[in-house]
Amino acid sequence: MIAVNPERFLENLHRLRAFGAAGVGRGVVRPAFSAADIAARDWLAGEMRAAGLTPQFDPVGSLFGLAEGRSVLVGSHSDSQPEGGWLDGALGVIAGLEIARASHEAGGPPVSVVSFQDEEGRFGVTTGSAIWAGNLSLEEADRLTDRDGVTFAGARAAMAHLVGDFVDSARFTGFFEMHIEQGPWLYEAGEAVGVVTDIVGIRDMRITLEGEQNHAGTTPMHRRRDAFQGLARFNTLLNERLRNVVTPQTVWTIGHVRLHPDAHSIVPGRATFSMQWRDGDADRLGRMEAIIRTTAQDVAQEMGLRVTFGDLLGLEPVAMDARLRDALCQSAEAHAPGRWRRMPSGALHDATNVARLLPTAMLFVPSIDGISHAFAEDTAETDLVAGLKVLAEAVARAA
Amino acid sequence: MIAVNPERFLENLHRLRAFGAAGVGRGVVRPAFSAADIAARDWLAGEMRAAGLTPQFDPVGSLFGLAEGRSVLVGSHSDSQPEGGWLDGALGVIAGLEIARASHEAGGPPVSVVSFQDEEGRFGVTTGSAIWAGNLSLEEADRLTDRDGVTFAGARAAMAHLVGDFVDSARFTGFFEMHIEQGPWLYEAGEAVGVVTDIVGIRDMRITLEGEQNHAGTTPMHRRRDAFQGLARFNTLLNERLRNVVTPQTVWTIGHVRLHPDAHSIVPGRATFSMQWRDGDADRLGRMEAIIRTTAQDVAQEMGLRVTFGDLLGLEPVAMDARLRDALCQSAEAHAPGRWRRMPSGALHDATNVARLLPTAMLFVPSIDGISHAFAEDTAETDLVAGLKVLAEAVARAA
Repeated sequence: MIAVNPERFLENLHRLRAFGAAGVGRGVVRPAFSAADIAARDWLAGEMRAAGLTPQFDPVGSLFGLAEGRSVLVGSHSDSQPEGGWLDGALGVIAGLEIARASHEAGGPPVSVVSFQDEEGRFGVTTGSAIWAGNLSLEEADRLTDRDGVTFAGARAAMAHLVGDFVDSARFTGFFEMHIEQGPWLYEAGEAVGVVTDIVGIRDMRITLEGEQNHAGTTPMHRRRDAFQGLARFNTLLNERLRNVVTPQTVWTIGHVRLHPDAHSIVPGRATFSMQWRDGDADRLGRMEAIIRTTAQDVAQEMGLRVTFGDLLGLEPVAMDARLRDALCQSAEAHAPGRWRRMPSGALHDATNVARLLPTAMLFVPSIDGISHAFAEDTAETDLVAGLKVLAEAVARAA
Repeated sequence: MIAVNPERFLENLHRLRAFGAAGVGRGVVRPAFSAADIAARDWLAGEMRAAGLTPQFDPVGSLFGLAEGRSVLVGSHSDSQPEGGWLDGALGVIAGLEIARASHEAGGPPVSVVSFQDEEGRFGVTTGSAIWAGNLSLEEADRLTDRDGVTFAGARAAMAHLVGDFVDSARFTGFFEMHIEQGPWLYEAGEAVGVVTDIVGIRDMRITLEGEQNHAGTTPMHRRRDAFQGLARFNTLLNERLRNVVTPQTVWTIGHVRLHPDAHSIVPGRATFSMQWRDGDADRLGRMEAIIRTTAQDVAQEMGLRVTFGDLLGLEPVAMDARLRDALCQSAEAHAPGRWRRMPSGALHDATNVARLLPTAMLFVPSIDGISHAFAEDTAETDLVAGLKVLAEAVARAA
């Protein structure tokens, strides 16, 4: 049992929000390596010291607050989206800080804290934890550039006066990450917390349909091989066929479309589009891939088009550690009986990377209206505190 | 009888192609107001002078080569599609240049030449001739923008050093435009030329569907308001509904699509696309517009999207002048007995606008495989020369 202080926890959340506070509601603009991000991490290091921890920045600016000896690690990230909310990432870091501090004050089990760098992917995808977990080499990372062409190497130089060596993962016995759900399920059900069973896998592939570019006035409809019509037909057919294999948690998205030559008066000769799908079951991801490929081929055949598939980007689903997950479930049932659920995470998190090194588990709290990555992102204070208490007890059980 | 010089005519076609020559075959990239377009018009002005004509650019960059006194006007346009061929438009301009030059050398009837600006509709629809004919005011035109948000006013400023006043149409007795068919009918029938009876009408409108931009991993399918899904649904429903009102000659096209933010991992919050439809019957064009608007509104309603319609651009169906058309028919029968036909034009042309001011007629030559608005666009040299001779005799008959 770790006796956390909800008032201090909420106060620190608001103090962290002050770094990059912007926009409406409780909006935050604190992208990785921005002045606000570096100042926030500097402030966090001081809070860690006050909590009896030894702060250490690793070479890319991920900040660890280290307890004596082997310890449980708790945290997330404190960088934000270009336009983000006050909780995404920050919640997990401040929760870890409060739990470590309360445990230290009570002479309880040692608890360390972490705020990983660039989880929001200004440069890569969950960049800081990917490097720490060895999923991405520092050399590769340094060559990554953001939308404005700034390199990762150049950006992290702004923290050179703060950083030290990488932290040895052997000193940690496990990792807990608390995060807002970023989806509507808990909020709609009026539930307090969700225990993550696994982080969904992603498949992402570019598909190109090629027909015949021609004059939009002189080419009769029955003689056209229109690549956009092929894309529309593919989309319709795919939605029908996927119904048989998906669950309510499965998602698929066409978010990018490029027609060629993309002119009002020309029958499109080529359509290139993104096809992304996510599910917790690697098997289902594979069945969906087969349906996507078959459907594109059927449409191409039917409409006299040529289909080509780009490289398949695959991130496998990651199952959470059974022992830590059970600690969260028992704690959830104790603090919110009947008001919690087991659920997959549809989004990637630092936990995806850390799970390579350590037993890892995740806890979700509700997102109001399921909104995140936006200024309007928020969560009821009672839910924030409930999440903190569930996490604190789970950490005590696991320690 | 005007004794044209086929070698000089073909040589000048190739010299014009050199401005913006690109892609495979005889491809050209010479959109209105591009550096290549302006350089090509500058070169044309010099050729007009060499042909005994007085070159004059009007305020929007349409280039006239003026003969002494009242004259027949012959021409088309020298701007190209974003990816076009070497003949579309250019053929009619160079044919006019050759006929004017040959007639001038032989002391024959005065013949003037024109190359209208932006026939391919970077900004509007046959913009340069629409302004000259008074179908579109210069004030309205200046507010038009291309797909990248450049205004017509801004684009034409690049020609400010060349332009003068508008040319008075009263100095012309009639207008002939020679053009490639851009369809398959003459080529497949092995015929040399087609005399146009009338030009179909066109409507063109941008439509925007707005939904809700959201996270592609955490937003369940049933909670999405996906603008791309709206576009796909609109397309399917529209194709079904139009079947009841269209003829085999009616065409409709979605050639341009832009999603926002156009990212793999984000549910599209906005889709903007072009909707263009063409038919010989103005009534039918109106009935199609009603179906398009209703269908977009129905889909928006059904899927929780917001729909907005851009300005409706368009031109009415136009019949060709009987006397000039007969001159072409007699000339065609003289030069290609049994190897020509009367036919409608499914494509829009500058002649559509000029017919408001002057007796107007059009001549088609075959397009190989009916391909145009593409690098592969081409026509057999014998057909190009046959067309030139048919046109030259018709001009002499009409003068």
